[in-house]
Amino acid sequence: MTNAGPQTAHDHAAPPPDAAAAPGGARDLLLAAASAVMREGDLVDISLSELSLRSGLNSALVKYYFGNKAGLLTALLDRDMAEIVRSVDALVAKGDMAPQDKLRHHISCCIDTYYRYPYLNRLLMRLVRDSDDAEARRIADKYLRPLSRAYDQLIGEGVKSGVFRPIDPQMFYFTVSGAADRFFSARLVLRHCFGQDSLTEQLRDRYREHTVDFIMAGILAD
Amino acid sequence: MTNAGPQTAHDHAAPPPDAAAAPGGARDLLLAAASAVMREGDLVDISLSELSLRSGLNSALVKYYFGNKAGLLTALLDRDMAEIVRSVDALVAKGDMAPQDKLRHHISCCIDTYYRYPYLNRLLMRLVRDSDDAEARRIADKYLRPLSRAYDQLIGEGVKSGVFRPIDPQMFYFTVSGAADRFFSARLVLRHCFGQDSLTEQLRDRYREHTVDFIMAGILAD
Repeated sequence: MTNAGPQTAHDHAAPPPDAAAAPGGARDLLLAAASAVMREGDLVDISLSELSLRSGLNSALVKYYFGNKAGLLTALLDRDMAEIVRSVDALVAKGDMAPQDKLRHHISCCIDTYYRYPYLNRLLMRLVRDSDDAEARRIADKYLRPLSRAYDQLIGEGVKSGVFRPIDPQMFYFTVSGAADRFFSARLVLRHCFGQDSLTEQLRDRYREHTVDFIMAGILAD
Repeated sequence: MTNAGPQTAHDHAAPPPDAAAAPGGARDLLLAAASAVMREGDLVDISLSELSLRSGLNSALVKYYFGNKAGLLTALLDRDMAEIVRSVDALVAKGDMAPQDKLRHHISCCIDTYYRYPYLNRLLMRLVRDSDDAEARRIADKYLRPLSRAYDQLIGEGVKSGVFRPIDPQMFYFTVSGAADRFFSARLVLRHCFGQDSLTEQLRDRYREHTVDFIMAGILAD
């Protein structure tokens, strides 16, 4: 997949009429519509006609802003992951917060993130898989390595000060993100098996409470 | 998806020559080849030509044994999930084993299962999503509900006897299977970001040790 970014398209084409009607907003609208459709359908794909229907915008705007559908999916990953990396970095940098409070807050945010973007992990896998080496490296450098560094720091701090048991931060990353992701990516299973939809706020809150409690019990030193 | 099983096909067609050459074994060979291809490619799909190349068998045998590719995928899910449900049921039924030892053993098995069948959870989601209601219900009744009951019993026993903290068994199921699954389904990410392949036995063993240790610390009462 080539990383057909909006800048590239911008430089070479005049904006179509719809874009002018929603200045600055059409791009965000398309991303929001793609996000909503994938969240509701529990899928990591979208048809351009569905996107057009949902956003009320001409699907030619996808070509204008993103080059093609792959570019749109990359832009969506960038939108969602940049927000996560920013907030995790800010949390780790906080000087006046104990490691256990930072971690509690972080786990809580993970649950909220996967509730909002249940497709996120699968989108990440898909884009890493389908991309050429340069783009896969860009995704790794921009999102995965910073998160990995943040875990090193956050967990390392707590281990060093003795509030956490000695835990491998990289292994721990898979425990946390797997537990958080699994619940919301198993939505169809929940629906078919237990007659409930995991995307209710009530279930999210229950799972958040369970996960924060469970993981903190697993990591805190006695 | 219709559940085109081998029995149905068997009743209506004479076995092609290849099948006769590998009596009883061709069906298993096809499933093993599909499993290996999906494991190595980190994908939940397979082309019939790839399957034929890998198994050394004529792809017409897929039609004979499974009806079509969807039938093959269903049969693979059945093969892998039946094994899991059987062993979890046997574990829960053991009268002479403490709940914490049962759980330790179970988590260990989960890691081994996802190491062997890293596609399993995604295959399950895909088949539940793509199936009609009757088939989704069959999958739920045969695999998901039994696992759910086993968790109720296994965790409930330990909570009752006081060795486990009070934990919701259903929420706990997502914690365990998410943590176990995530590591191996993130293989491409590991490869691109950290230059390592999670499907080595060494990494499996490290992740198994981490996961058993972490989850037991999270559930054991003080």
